[in-house]
Amino acid sequence: MFNKISIIGCGLIGSSILRAVEEKKLASKMSVYDKSSKVNEYLKKNFSVEICTNISDVVKDSDLVIIASPLSSYKEILLSIQSNLKENVILTDTGSVKKEVNKIICNLNLKKVNWIASHPIAGTEYSGPEAGFASLFKNRWCIISADKKVSEDKIKSLENFWSKLGSKTKFMTFEDHDYVLSLTSHLPHAVAYSIVKTAINNEDKFKDEVIQYSAGGLRDFTRIAASDPLMWKDIFIDNSDNIIKVLDNYSKSLNEIKDAIKNKDSKKLLDIFSSTKKVRKEIIEAGQDTDKPDFGRK
Amino acid sequence: MFNKISIIGCGLIGSSILRAVEEKKLASKMSVYDKSSKVNEYLKKNFSVEICTNISDVVKDSDLVIIASPLSSYKEILLSIQSNLKENVILTDTGSVKKEVNKIICNLNLKKVNWIASHPIAGTEYSGPEAGFASLFKNRWCIISADKKVSEDKIKSLENFWSKLGSKTKFMTFEDHDYVLSLTSHLPHAVAYSIVKTAINNEDKFKDEVIQYSAGGLRDFTRIAASDPLMWKDIFIDNSDNIIKVLDNYSKSLNEIKDAIKNKDSKKLLDIFSSTKKVRKEIIEAGQDTDKPDFGRK
Repeated sequence: MFNKISIIGCGLIGSSILRAVEEKKLASKMSVYDKSSKVNEYLKKNFSVEICTNISDVVKDSDLVIIASPLSSYKEILLSIQSNLKENVILTDTGSVKKEVNKIICNLNLKKVNWIASHPIAGTEYSGPEAGFASLFKNRWCIISADKKVSEDKIKSLENFWSKLGSKTKFMTFEDHDYVLSLTSHLPHAVAYSIVKTAINNEDKFKDEVIQYSAGGLRDFTRIAASDPLMWKDIFIDNSDNIIKVLDNYSKSLNEIKDAIKNKDSKKLLDIFSSTKKVRKEIIEAGQDTDKPDFGRK
Repeated sequence: MFNKISIIGCGLIGSSILRAVEEKKLASKMSVYDKSSKVNEYLKKNFSVEICTNISDVVKDSDLVIIASPLSSYKEILLSIQSNLKENVILTDTGSVKKEVNKIICNLNLKKVNWIASHPIAGTEYSGPEAGFASLFKNRWCIISADKKVSEDKIKSLENFWSKLGSKTKFMTFEDHDYVLSLTSHLPHAVAYSIVKTAINNEDKFKDEVIQYSAGGLRDFTRIAASDPLMWKDIFIDNSDNIIKVLDNYSKSLNEIKDAIKNKDSKKLLDIFSSTKKVRKEIIEAGQDTDKPDFGRK
């Protein structure tokens, strides 16, 4: 499909792409760069790809360059690679926020580079290359965003790449992407971090009990509150306007429930709980979660 | 173990106890009562136990009576059964709130009845007898609470019963139970209901997107926001004082994160996210959740 693919950043996402591209033979050549020597050791042991120690080398002659590192590293990365990018290359990423990234890239005014953002809605609570696996993107959505001036051909080509990795693709503007994801992903993470923080801020007397009896609900939240701290710090900062807006709406919903509890308003509570029950069914029907009880834990 | 066991309410929990008692042969005789004719139809088809249509009959000659119905039904149930309870019977329940229930029972001033509360920390997002299964209590905690005047023998006997069902038991005061569970279970449910409500209150334009891209975090919350509305309405009303208290603490944690996002305070965000990451590890080490990525969904 592509003669050469380069991946910058080989953590959970980058290494999963690497595995999938190898498995499905989507490139004749691959090169990777990661700033961590520990990651490079792991890559050397487990893959037979070109591992670059100098970031500017990694993109040479590459037809598809994928940035799979934290959002806060993009600017430095782009400044280091821009002069070595091949003419007509597709430059993409895997980040969870798009508007800010697009601003950075537009400001660089790259010539003859097809910048098309990707966001694979895939991941686990684990990080690092050991946590990656080739089927991570299978049946998951990948959101694609690009300026109007980018050619349809190139967009198709990138969509095709994600399809071969098993993903369903969807085109969205940078702005819509950031708003939708603030609801479906960033708000849940903010809430999960807050609830786990509340539980552990608790009196020492009950510290062990909070862990022991977490199966009553808390444990579900701890999974996403265990996500990579560095990655999530970047997301919250880069998409702060949307996140603050949805957090305000969320606080209103929470206060509505709190008032109903204070007033012992059975009808109101029943109405709210019945409406939220439906959403689970819709998510399962849309193929976005398992219908096994307890996520199939038993 | 017991000559006769009676179960009042045969939904997810009651039917799972029924299945486990049958499977492990923990009683010579069993009787069940459920006010729903649909549930009774199901029980007739699937079990060979005594199905009572009159609630006062179900407890006759029973050595262990288990109330497994919504908290708001307890008072009526107790008034209906009290005169038929066998002398020296163990009366227990499976409810998620204890202090209010204990008040109701103390006020009834039942004679020669050993009231010992049980709370199996087990359940799924599904309800009804079809959703039950015998291994529901396996490796889960069951919290036991009783007044000081209840004999040690009887408490041991009930603990032994839950152990045979596969549970680990822990004795706690009614008050401590309600506080710990408000943190580990009731707060997570209030938060899950609020977040799903926020997501669906959203502009119609993004209704489908919210479902489609829920794998970014939201879907984890929808599981517990799909729990039985009637049961949860009762829990919030019966444990309102504790829940309001922890919701206030939670709002403080949330505002701390919101302020850090507004101020783009990277250090603060990293500190919070790193501290919550540890809790997941502790929960897995305590055997309270799976360590498979994504709850083993893949």
